[in-house]
Amino acid sequence: MTQERQMPDKAIILTNGELKNSDAKTAHGLIRGTKRFDIAGVIDTVSAGQDAGVVLDGLQRNIPVFANITDFIAQADVKPVWAVIGVALAGGRLGTNWEELLLEVLENRIGIINGLHQSLSTVVRLKAAADRNQVRICDIRKPRPIEELHYWSGKVYDVTVPRIAVLGMDCAVGKRTTCQMLMTLCEAGGIRTELIYTGQTGWMLGYGNGFILDATPNDFVSGEIERAIMDCARQSAPDLMLLEGQSGFRNPSGPCGAEILLSGDVKGVIMVHAPFRTHYVDHESAGCIIPTVESEIELIRMHGAETLAVVLNTETGEPGRLKAYQQDLATKLKLPVIRPIEEGVDRLLPVIRDFIANP
Amino acid sequence: MTQERQMPDKAIILTNGELKNSDAKTAHGLIRGTKRFDIAGVIDTVSAGQDAGVVLDGLQRNIPVFANITDFIAQADVKPVWAVIGVALAGGRLGTNWEELLLEVLENRIGIINGLHQSLSTVVRLKAAADRNQVRICDIRKPRPIEELHYWSGKVYDVTVPRIAVLGMDCAVGKRTTCQMLMTLCEAGGIRTELIYTGQTGWMLGYGNGFILDATPNDFVSGEIERAIMDCARQSAPDLMLLEGQSGFRNPSGPCGAEILLSGDVKGVIMVHAPFRTHYVDHESAGCIIPTVESEIELIRMHGAETLAVVLNTETGEPGRLKAYQQDLATKLKLPVIRPIEEGVDRLLPVIRDFIANP
Repeated sequence: MTQERQMPDKAIILTNGELKNSDAKTAHGLIRGTKRFDIAGVIDTVSAGQDAGVVLDGLQRNIPVFANITDFIAQADVKPVWAVIGVALAGGRLGTNWEELLLEVLENRIGIINGLHQSLSTVVRLKAAADRNQVRICDIRKPRPIEELHYWSGKVYDVTVPRIAVLGMDCAVGKRTTCQMLMTLCEAGGIRTELIYTGQTGWMLGYGNGFILDATPNDFVSGEIERAIMDCARQSAPDLMLLEGQSGFRNPSGPCGAEILLSGDVKGVIMVHAPFRTHYVDHESAGCIIPTVESEIELIRMHGAETLAVVLNTETGEPGRLKAYQQDLATKLKLPVIRPIEEGVDRLLPVIRDFIANP
Repeated sequence: MTQERQMPDKAIILTNGELKNSDAKTAHGLIRGTKRFDIAGVIDTVSAGQDAGVVLDGLQRNIPVFANITDFIAQADVKPVWAVIGVALAGGRLGTNWEELLLEVLENRIGIINGLHQSLSTVVRLKAAADRNQVRICDIRKPRPIEELHYWSGKVYDVTVPRIAVLGMDCAVGKRTTCQMLMTLCEAGGIRTELIYTGQTGWMLGYGNGFILDATPNDFVSGEIERAIMDCARQSAPDLMLLEGQSGFRNPSGPCGAEILLSGDVKGVIMVHAPFRTHYVDHESAGCIIPTVESEIELIRMHGAETLAVVLNTETGEPGRLKAYQQDLATKLKLPVIRPIEEGVDRLLPVIRDFIANP
């Protein structure tokens, strides 16, 4: 897969009432912009009648939300090729209430793009409907065959393109959104930047190099990171690579960070943090308290990388309190700390330029 | 799989000339002792005629080494049920020189236990030979279907059995051997101990609970660690669980450690270290320098666990130099540092008893 490609396929996004929730982060990424698909609408009973961009973050994006497939078809000039499942449920499995919606999609001769762990192409009723209507169900998170996976070799040390990982203190904190904002920033600033995606949404957004980390057998994670970086350097020779992080470094439900920094030989980190979140998402026990940003920065240093800036997720928290937190943290860390939704990410451009000059 | 089982199957180990090398660590574990198989011999051209235990570490274990299958059959009273591939090659794939050996095994109506990533049951010539001779090829490292895997839930926090992880500063440093020595030590000391295995050799040795970490899709590693611990507590209610570590915490070729400590809620670590090894095994670049033990202990602390002792791998290093290193390190760390081959592991019994009393 490279970023050079033909016209993107027309697609709709299925969120089935979840569009407003953080579970719909695949949908949110697609609404913010994708090169892989031309998004014609969202199917969501709860938010029907509104613009999906407005529902997401108040910005009009001309992506209408419909209550069901019939309503969508009634107004559509061209039928979409794909319906993308826009939710990433904890557990990676869809409830049974989804099955009827998916059958309706298939009966309308629209294929399905499924980024969940659960294979849908092997569900008997769905497979039969897909075959009958001559459309495909693509399970993009299915692990690739062992024969196509790579072991780590150390050749990544020969890749001289500077690399920054966008890590998060937790899941669902805004890592991928931050990546998208940084991509726009860097491109506008004349820095040719490529994103190495590590999740299914990254693939859906149309980024050229990467892999789906959580679906990869553990032994091959390091080698696939390395391969994505090497392929990207060879195909695009950019000025900068951004690596999309996953989970949190010390999230007990699935720690991730060491692989990205060490196996990808990454020397810079931009950390995304939700200030008033006390526990890792979906877990309330004492063992799941999120550590301090200071301690995380020290941990990152122990993995050979420096933290360049902190990006705050301001979804929760009163504005005055968030601003005070931001100033305190910036003083304590002696690092730029930004609130991207309110301020944009422009202040990170000189930071990134510095890093590229002295990686 | 539980530890209660019938008579173990008779098996031979295939090492194909590698018996003396660290690549044959699966064989080494089996020679040291397995509850899953009754080991009748080793096939290895280089070490043929010797006792496998003597080749391994000088201890007679009445496991003869034969140059080939024919020689073995000529003296065997009972034919083995299985031939276990005893090497774990970097890359997890066998060279073509192995294929003839495996065909000979199958033609003698002996099944194959394969712990490599490479599936052998799908290799056309091997599959045909297995079918013709009505024996099986078991690819034990094949990832289990998604439907059988578990997500992490946090229920591990309810398991009160104290847990010690045996981690290593690197791969191939003696983690599993240390586990086996500690199991013997604890059992002799009246501490009912269970091992949670995380590699294919652990399965082959017949331990009851665990999973093959490196073959597990990344998203399920944390949940499978938790499940193994919960199953073990329910089935055996031991006084202590030992968790087998994998790789090294900061080994760029595949870092591992955070998952075991955090997702398994493990509070104690015994660290295995090869004193004079400068670089991670098989990797000589500057990025692959092994960090100091002090720094690793600090990293472990940042994951909520304390290091209880350091076990030295004394395979290389002159005895006087090793002893001086041991004393220096013990002084510096204020921890027990032992040379298990020379001294045994008895000094760790009070350490483990203390940990169980105050986990």
